[in-house]
Amino acid sequence: MTTSGILSPPDRPEALNWSAENCTLGRAMAVLGEKWTIVVLREVFLGVHRFEDMRVRTGIPRQVLTKRLATLVGHGILRRHPYQVPGERVREEYRLTEKGLDLYPVLAAILAWGDRYLGDPGGPPVVLVHRDCGAAVSVELRCADGHPVSPRATVPRPGPGARPRGADGAGRARGVRGSNGGRRLRRSVR
Amino acid sequence: MTTSGILSPPDRPEALNWSAENCTLGRAMAVLGEKWTIVVLREVFLGVHRFEDMRVRTGIPRQVLTKRLATLVGHGILRRHPYQVPGERVREEYRLTEKGLDLYPVLAAILAWGDRYLGDPGGPPVVLVHRDCGAAVSVELRCADGHPVSPRATVPRPGPGARPRGADGAGRARGVRGSNGGRRLRRSVR
Repeated sequence: MTTSGILSPPDRPEALNWSAENCTLGRAMAVLGEKWTIVVLREVFLGVHRFEDMRVRTGIPRQVLTKRLATLVGHGILRRHPYQVPGERVREEYRLTEKGLDLYPVLAAILAWGDRYLGDPGGPPVVLVHRDCGAAVSVELRCADGHPVSPRATVPRPGPGARPRGADGAGRARGVRGSNGGRRLRRSVR
Repeated sequence: MTTSGILSPPDRPEALNWSAENCTLGRAMAVLGEKWTIVVLREVFLGVHRFEDMRVRTGIPRQVLTKRLATLVGHGILRRHPYQVPGERVREEYRLTEKGLDLYPVLAAILAWGDRYLGDPGGPPVVLVHRDCGAAVSVELRCADGHPVSPRATVPRPGPGARPRGADGAGRARGVRGSNGGRRLRRSVR
């Protein structure tokens, strides 16, 4: 019995068979999921490495900035690097580690989305360009066979580390699919 | 006077000449910068559209989930869509708008980084594949001329909407660069 104009429910999503407990996106957001954390990383990616410069440019309260920087150092995303202005004491600035540098696509993707939907009429305040050729850089989804892929053409599949959900959860809908069954069904990944 | 073993400070970063006030990455994070917001989006991207399914799979407290969903609907990232299970009342599920779908590269980039640095030894719980060919999908930086670009080969430049910083801030270091001068210097973007 469906009401006219209301679509019938889609098939039960595959994701309901799998645990979200070991989700690496969730874990990544436990590190990054705080506005100021990403803003601090933006500063470092923009070449602003020093506490006082970051503080003045971002307006982040001093204590918050201290804490965010310590967290990022603790996670191995930033490292402290000594520097000395002539005649002053040795200070430390913040530099990206490899782990931090690998966040570039995350920041570039957030920036692109922000530019598209939250920008001023005058256009984006920052553009990313390829140093070698000067052309604008963007973030693309692409498959291992080299095809550009749209979001709608991208499908999530249980990976090698997927954990079937416990019976209490998975049993709520159309019955528990066996752990092997679920995995067998959909492992078309290379 | 620099101490041996300590690198001298790099050139003053270009970013210090520009305001961070209209940064679209900051604005994007004002919408997204909360762990549960991204986790809710993950669920919808995985095909989990219904409140109760999301709640059980993520463990997000009911009130928090209600609030996050309302925020995402308010920002036009999700929309409510009526559905009806036969014999039950009409309910609403949550679907991505175009604005929401355009967040796919953001989530894919976070996921990739999480898989790389925060994964279990068994491998990633979820992999993204190209529906048409089955190959794994990844996020790439690429320039408008078609070159794959590494983070280190990507440089930020002031965009058309860049705002010079006010004299109180910009004047702290090597003096204020005029608004036209700064922009003229670096606009090599196409």
